[in-house]
Amino acid sequence: MSEIRVIEIKESIFADNDREADRIRTRLKEEKTFLLNLMSSPGSGKTTTLLRTIEALKEEIRIGVMEADIDSLVDAEKIAGTGVRSIQLHTGGMCHLDAGMTEQGLDEIGTEDLDLVVLENVGNLVCPAEFDTGAVKNAMILSVPEGHDKPLKYPLIFTVCDALIINKIDVLPYFDFDMEKVKEYALMRNPRLEIFPVSAKTGEGIDAWCDWLKGQLRDHGCSGFV
Amino acid sequence: MSEIRVIEIKESIFADNDREADRIRTRLKEEKTFLLNLMSSPGSGKTTTLLRTIEALKEEIRIGVMEADIDSLVDAEKIAGTGVRSIQLHTGGMCHLDAGMTEQGLDEIGTEDLDLVVLENVGNLVCPAEFDTGAVKNAMILSVPEGHDKPLKYPLIFTVCDALIINKIDVLPYFDFDMEKVKEYALMRNPRLEIFPVSAKTGEGIDAWCDWLKGQLRDHGCSGFV
Repeated sequence: MSEIRVIEIKESIFADNDREADRIRTRLKEEKTFLLNLMSSPGSGKTTTLLRTIEALKEEIRIGVMEADIDSLVDAEKIAGTGVRSIQLHTGGMCHLDAGMTEQGLDEIGTEDLDLVVLENVGNLVCPAEFDTGAVKNAMILSVPEGHDKPLKYPLIFTVCDALIINKIDVLPYFDFDMEKVKEYALMRNPRLEIFPVSAKTGEGIDAWCDWLKGQLRDHGCSGFV
Repeated sequence: MSEIRVIEIKESIFADNDREADRIRTRLKEEKTFLLNLMSSPGSGKTTTLLRTIEALKEEIRIGVMEADIDSLVDAEKIAGTGVRSIQLHTGGMCHLDAGMTEQGLDEIGTEDLDLVVLENVGNLVCPAEFDTGAVKNAMILSVPEGHDKPLKYPLIFTVCDALIINKIDVLPYFDFDMEKVKEYALMRNPRLEIFPVSAKTGEGIDAWCDWLKGQLRDHGCSGFV
């Protein structure tokens, strides 16, 4: 039914995950490939946001996507529809990816001719935040229906991220979500956090997010901007 | 500032979690105390649903609540406001509770004079599903904004639950959420799953959920129905 390439990744054999992650970053710097680790809760709109991002950038940047999932193909099939290179990483029940697992994915997708690889991490606000994947930058999505108190309840993920996308702003009128408070709480965890309110559904705010991402790729020396 | 009792629970020392869980269930049967393990993603409305449930049942049932959280008191303070006995379990970063950790909570809250103890598990659809806590029944909440595809992406949690609460039905008009499909997918995972569409915000559907819960307590021999 599907032609998605599925990789059953194994638990990492590296004792020192942080060192392995640094090794991946060195490799990515040499290859001028930018790896973005995208995290969020289930249902916050990671895949839809990614579809919008791909649509906005795919003409100027060579993009690859690694979809990590417990065991389905739901998201990978949507991403494959955009025409960018994508693979599905099956974690075999594991709730996060570490550096070794990420590297298995990078080897499979082939990074040399890509400017941007997005790792769509397992939907979970807890475990993925604890493992450095080797990504150049970490981003997370918090959606309006989840509530503005999440930086108080899941502090670590807000601390390790460089960018926070606040998705589903189109439904703000129907939820008791305080945008000023969520910014205050998130910046309390991480004063350098870049915050992007967006609606992946309507496209609102996607440009600002993509501009930030393009700036990051430029800083990384990616060659796609010719 | 807060008078919530906070318990820093330790990682379990039991090698055989399933046996420890069965031991807890035997104890709860003798004490006629019903333990409900409530799981969901972050932001699906666990605490609000619990507040509605407490409001509906607290006059006829003696209720206690154990709030498990990485490290905040946000939810426990709301629950304490209802007047029911509550404690906060801090997992020290751990993404789930196992049977040994749950028992530490039960010992601290004191179960002899309670009919119903609700364990509000850590917000996560992956890890909590993997560990039997010793609960008599497991329930989960999926909220409308998370999407109807979640039983396809997080199969285990739907398999281990006895009841599925579909929360935030008040915002159904603003999301592409197919109620028939979510029921079909969830029942595919678990044909015995009881499904309760509710709005914890408006109170719609809470009665049916509470009736089911009361039936479960009756079957367990709880003495609160006098």
